[in-house]
Amino acid sequence: MLDQTQTRPEDSASIQTSPRKRYIKTKAGFLMVLRHRDDVLGCLAQLAETEKLASASFVGMGFVHRATFGFYDFVKKAFDPKTFYDAELASMTGTIAWQNGKPSIHAHGVVSDASFAAVGGHVLELEVGTGSLEITITAHDQRLEREIDPGIQANILGL
Amino acid sequence: MLDQTQTRPEDSASIQTSPRKRYIKTKAGFLMVLRHRDDVLGCLAQLAETEKLASASFVGMGFVHRATFGFYDFVKKAFDPKTFYDAELASMTGTIAWQNGKPSIHAHGVVSDASFAAVGGHVLELEVGTGSLEITITAHDQRLEREIDPGIQANILGL
Amino acid sequence: MLDQTQTRPEDSASIQTSPRKRYIKTKAGFLMVLRHRDDVLGCLAQLAETEKLASASFVGMGFVHRATFGFYDFVKKAFDPKTFYDAELASMTGTIAWQNGKPSIHAHGVVSDASFAAVGGHVLELEVGTGSLEITITAHDQRLEREIDPGIQANILGL
Repeated sequence: MLDQTQTRPEDSASIQTSPRKRYIKTKAGFLMVLRHRDDVLGCLAQLAETEKLASASFVGMGFVHRATFGFYDFVKKAFDPKTFYDAELASMTGTIAWQNGKPSIHAHGVVSDASFAAVGGHVLELEVGTGSLEITITAHDQRLEREIDPGIQANILGL
Repeated sequence: MLDQTQTRPEDSASIQTSPRKRYIKTKAGFLMVLRHRDDVLGCLAQLAETEKLASASFVGMGFVHRATFGFYDFVKKAFDPKTFYDAELASMTGTIAWQNGKPSIHAHGVVSDASFAAVGGHVLELEVGTGSLEITITAHDQRLEREIDPGIQANILGL
Repeated sequence: MLDQTQTRPEDSASIQTSPRKRYIKTKAGFLMVLRHRDDVLGCLAQLAETEKLASASFVGMGFVHRATFGFYDFVKKAFDPKTFYDAELASMTGTIAWQNGKPSIHAHGVVSDASFAAVGGHVLELEVGTGSLEITITAHDQRLEREIDPGIQANILGL
């Protein structure tokens, strides 16, 4: 099964960001191709910094070594996380904005394993598996900021 | 579990569309951020009317209070609906066109709850939950109309 | 249930590509509407050839008669396929590039049946069902090629 709650200590250590070319500029924004062990949210944040993205939307898919989803518990005021290993990323959808001067990536995804059963939700961490992960980024002109709405403890994209 | 077949009567009454800013114009179209209790299909239809959209495509994700999917029963000639509550919208994909002078929104989605198990299909109704829902809209120049194909009782986007 | 491992011999024979108009050009690329029995990957490849697409990204959804997903077995060095019939395509995300002079379509998808339970993964084959399937294509200017990475036996989009 996909679900493995125990952590595998070698994973976090091995996430790396080598100088390999990870994206090209397109008419609408960028096309990114990530490879084995790339940290997806980190690479999107790096793109936002390097390219001084005002804001952006993205879709993507590929193969992941590790996907951690979180479901928000409004009583505990924290995400309940669950990690799935070695799965196809059947879909990823998200936006890039800024928060406190840092890129803020909001991504949701769906993954499936050899049984093809799909799980998904709010992405907390995503690491590319043995293969690649392709992301199409549409850039917007407006600098957008995310802010925590104190009433619902949620991070909201301000327009 | 996500599935609750009983209706909750307070829900439909509380769907509202306040004058709060729900979208901005982007290079490619629009970026929409909906909030708690917003009716997603209604807000997309309102965008189509206000902005006189010829046609458009969209992707989105967020948190929903209520998602009703329908699976078409060709014998009964009706959708069998099922409603899921308080779930992450892991993915939404769709198009905006016109039918009989009114906006026609066609959306498919995938949602998941605290178990992360994913369900999805053709969206009949979608209401934002405690959080937000972000939609990226790509506008097209051609006015497109949907028409029912009598042979298959399906609503088809005409090119 | 969705899963039917036995093949239905009439299916492959009846995939056809009639001269009916399947897409229009938009500002960002193309909007494609496929109909019953259309071969989705074949129609995208035909678009790439006819329109001399350098490369492209796409998202889509609709109703499928048949979706075959494959999960790669690194020991057998082959995809383990599984076919699902008469299901909503809740999401499809992919890219178009070239390989050995032919269009190379990489698509991932999520489908669900009357139970709404979602399955998904890497799309090997996809045939439209009784209804339609809508695909929004964003065209890029760069000609991109896919190449097999011999180390991982995976087809990688080169930038």
